[in-house]
This record gives sequence, C-alpha cells and structure tokens, in this order.
Amino acid sequence: MSNVLVIGPESDAERAITEAAFDPLYSPSLADAAQLSEAERGAITAIAYRGHHAFGGAEMDAFPALGLIANFGVGYDAIDTVAASARDVRVTNTPDVLNDDVADLTVLMLLAHERQYEGASRWVRDGNWSSQGAYPLGRKVSGRKVGILGLGRIGRDIADRLAAFKSEIHYFARSQKDTPGWQFHSDPVSLAQSVDYLIVALVGGPDTQNFVSKAVIDALGPNGVLVNISRGSTVDEGALLDALEANTLGGAALDVFLNEPHIDPRFLALDNVSFQPHQGSATVETRAAMAQLQRDNVSAFTTGQALLTPVN
Amino acid sequence: MSNVLVIGPESDAERAITEAAFDPLYSPSLADAAQLSEAERGAITAIAYRGHHAFGGAEMDAFPALGLIANFGVGYDAIDTVAASARDVRVTNTPDVLNDDVADLTVLMLLAHERQYEGASRWVRDGNWSSQGAYPLGRKVSGRKVGILGLGRIGRDIADRLAAFKSEIHYFARSQKDTPGWQFHSDPVSLAQSVDYLIVALVGGPDTQNFVSKAVIDALGPNGVLVNISRGSTVDEGALLDALEANTLGGAALDVFLNEPHIDPRFLALDNVSFQPHQGSATVETRAAMAQLQRDNVSAFTTGQALLTPVN
Repeated sequence: MSNVLVIGPESDAERAITEAAFDPLYSPSLADAAQLSEAERGAITAIAYRGHHAFGGAEMDAFPALGLIANFGVGYDAIDTVAASARDVRVTNTPDVLNDDVADLTVLMLLAHERQYEGASRWVRDGNWSSQGAYPLGRKVSGRKVGILGLGRIGRDIADRLAAFKSEIHYFARSQKDTPGWQFHSDPVSLAQSVDYLIVALVGGPDTQNFVSKAVIDALGPNGVLVNISRGSTVDEGALLDALEANTLGGAALDVFLNEPHIDPRFLALDNVSFQPHQGSATVETRAAMAQLQRDNVSAFTTGQALLTPVN
Repeated sequence: MSNVLVIGPESDAERAITEAAFDPLYSPSLADAAQLSEAERGAITAIAYRGHHAFGGAEMDAFPALGLIANFGVGYDAIDTVAASARDVRVTNTPDVLNDDVADLTVLMLLAHERQYEGASRWVRDGNWSSQGAYPLGRKVSGRKVGILGLGRIGRDIADRLAAFKSEIHYFARSQKDTPGWQFHSDPVSLAQSVDYLIVALVGGPDTQNFVSKAVIDALGPNGVLVNISRGSTVDEGALLDALEANTLGGAALDVFLNEPHIDPRFLALDNVSFQPHQGSATVETRAAMAQLQRDNVSAFTTGQALLTPVN
C-alpha cells in the first residue's frame, strides 16, 4: 500500500516522474483525500500538497501515520504548522527557486499598469491605431520612488531589479537590513507616504493579515499604485476596493486576492486595476523546479535523510 | 508674419506653451503645410516637426527661408539630413530624454510576451479563472541570454536593466564597447545564434534597412524571441512574418512596424506576436520633456544661440 499521497493537480510530465519515484496515491484536493479508505489513509506517511485550502489539525488527523507535508510553493500559510508540530508532522516548502519569477512578474505588473500595456495592445489588435491614431499616454516608471513592504528574499530580488530602473528604493522590514543606500522605514504608513509605488512582498498568514490597512492605503494616496504579489490576506481588501472606487488610491496591480480564484466582483468594474491570476511562479521552468524540490523533500523523508527545506 | 511653423499634433497644454513662446503657424501634417500661402511659407525660418512622413528636399524647398527643422523624437530618419545640409537647414532631435521610457517599454514587452501577461489578464477579466482554474504556464525570463542589436544610449539602458534580471548580455555594435562583462559580436547572425532574446535598438534610416535579415531571424530560431523598439525598417518584415507563420521563429514583441499605423494584417492573425502602437516614449512625463527640448532648439535658433541637440 502506498505511503505517499499527492494532493492537487500535476502536469502529465510531472506525474510520470512522481509515479516512478513513489508510486503514490493521488487526490485532486484535500477534501477528496478525506474520502480515501481508512486503510489507505492509515498507510500515508508523506503528503505532497499543492493547494491553498486550509490544511489544519483536523485534516492531519485523517492520516494517523502522517510525518510530512511537503508544500508546493514558498508560502505555506494554508498549512497550520503549530498543529503540525504538535503532531510531529514536519512541513517543507519550495523557497528560492521561484524568487526570480515572482520578482519578474512584479516588475512586469508595475510597468504594464503604468504604461497601459493591455489597453495599448488592444488598440493595435482592434485596428484603432490605424483608424483613430495614437493611444493615450501612460506614465513614466523609471526614476520613481518605490517602497518594498517586506524585504525578504523575494522583496530584495524585486528591489534589485527596480534599482536598475533608477528607482529610489524604500523598504519596511522588521529590522534594518544591510542595503545599498535604500531607505529603511520602521512603519508601513511612513513607507507608503514616501513612495509612488508600494509593493507588498510580505509572507502570508495571521501575522500579516490586513497589514496593508486603510491607513497605509490612504498614505499611498491618489497618485500611488499598490502592487500585491504576496497573498490576498496581507491587504485589507474592503478598504482597497473602497479607495479604488473613490480614486483616493491611484491604482493597483494585483496577482493575489482574497478567496481567489473567486475574486470580489467589485474589482472587475474598476478601470484603475491590473490583474493577473496568481501567476507569480507560473512558468514552465519554475514549476518544474518547485516540483523537483517538493519530490526531493518527500524522498528525503521516506529514506530518512535530512529535509532540504523544512519550515517547522 | 510668423516665422515658426509647428507641424503635427500637440496637446492643449503643450500648444499653450508653444503659442506663448513663438506665436507660430500650425499644420496637422507636412502635406497640409504645403497648402499654406506662398507668403506664409516664405516667412518660415524654423519648423517644429512631429511626424514620421518623409521630409525631403522637395518639402524643404517649399520653405525658401527655412533654417531649422526641430524634430520631435530621437529618430530623425524621416528627415533627409543630406538634403537639409545642402540647403543650410539645421536639424535637431530630442535624444536622451526618452531613453528611460524606451528601455522600460522594452523590458515590459519582453516580460509580457514571455509571461503571457495579456492572456492571463483577460483570463481574470473574463471570469475564466473562477470557472476554469489556472491559466497556462509562461516562460521564465530571468537568467536567459539577451542580445542587444545596437549598443547606443538606448541599447545600453536596456542592457543595464536586463542585467538586473540576471541575464547574460551579448551585443552587436560597430565596435567593441567598454562594457561590464558583456559579450561583443561583430556579426548580427553570430549574436542571434547566441541568445534567447534579440532586442533591436538600432537607429533607423537607410544604413540599417532590413538589418535584421532572414539570416538573422533564422539564427534566432524557433525558441527565440525578437523584440523591436527601433524602427520597422530595421527588420525584413516579410521574412519576419514568414518565420512567425512557420514557427521557425518563436515569437516577436513589436512596438514598431513598416507603414505604421497601417500595419500588415498578417501580423494580427498570429498568436506568437505581442503588440504595442509605437509607445516607446509615450508617457506624459517624457513627451513633455521632448516638447520642451524641441522648443528649446527652436528658441536657440530664433535667438541666434547654439542649438542644443543638432544632428547635422
């Protein structure tokens, strides 16, 4: 009986590798996994998890021999690590291999929003360039003031890229970092007041819930743009929607949302928001690297080696 | 009678400044300008030109007292500078003030093409994320090999930005430059063979016509992406369309085209091309800076001072 369970979608190519490595059971979701037989669940010692639904103590208890949850993604806020530790369940994630992609997407979303990329593209595709002439002007990005909220590894990769756009870099972090001339702020409102663009690169989870509060959004103001590539939970989404509707915030470029993919329909009525469907790590290359790191953690566990990227 | 003629569209704000400075005549196009009376044309000593239609010796001869054509834009390939010099007509352009915007747009177009930004955005807007799940994966940009064709000031600004994306930078220029570890190629085919992304940052005009030849396009190959932010004339557009249709070139991100804005309709049938409607310098900030530099050149000429940015 298999002792590895894979939860969530895999590409055919990835599934072939996983199959050869572990001969695992598969479930499309955590809810489906609960429907496995008691004998099947009882044999599972390691779960490779790909999903954003809450994985708490009750879900863990359905697998009495469970010793590892190997998360696909750097953000493991869906997994209750306190409950896991209490049950001697180790949790791993897939850090670092996705930093480049997330930082690339951040720069892309900021540039696309300010330069009106999508509308300008449609202008060509719809034949309006030929019939009506030039598209309206966008806004210059290089040389502006950028605030990074959370200067972890991803935040720093974002800042390094934007520095090459001659940006003035400001950041908030729990403590001042050794940075090349970047301006530290100990308070997110001070950060938001000081910049044109505020980029949210916090970790998710209860500690950062609504960290981008109404006060932070107000401080960013009617000429500011909020970019969120972290988690929907880090932003007070009601306050964000109010500010966007009232134009007390200039605009937002959002890759993440509360309750995604079922995002608040108020967003779709706005013309000052740019969207991506949680594409931070969504490249062929990076998803393959994340899948490999997830498998490597499962292999390490099932063969009694040290986990590569443990989080508890 | 006015001795300054403004050709091409101006925003109301810019027009107010121009009006106060020169009390000029206005024409929407070079063709319209030829319809001015002989007396009006005879009084014109300086033309502020905004357009891409050919401004040759015949057009200059319609203004017998002409001494300056102040071009709006860094690329002055529409203006026959040989004919101008033969008539003692000075030509100026607006270099440098637009470099940042063009470099920003280049990075934006490359990222948007590879990360499938536009399709992913539509996926959210059309409700497909909610009803159908994740959007297909894009391709990773950071860490790839980038070739810059033409390492002038704009080319270097592009390379500086892409270096922050951990790119391996290759370039073609007339001579090797003092660059930080970038790989010089004396031949554009060698450059195209060595890279994943080929970025065209050449000046326009007859010397660079079809510089991106079928051989260069073939060398870039089925996994390569061509980015053109220079002039449509620098690329053999027929060969480009053939290669895109046959998938012997992976893709293209194009801000400039032959005969723009009336672009070849073959482009619009392709799903491996990203479009912008010549947005290189199209921001509020940069267009204002270009207009100011154009006016400063006209002022310098009409008051007998040295031109700020002469090209002949």
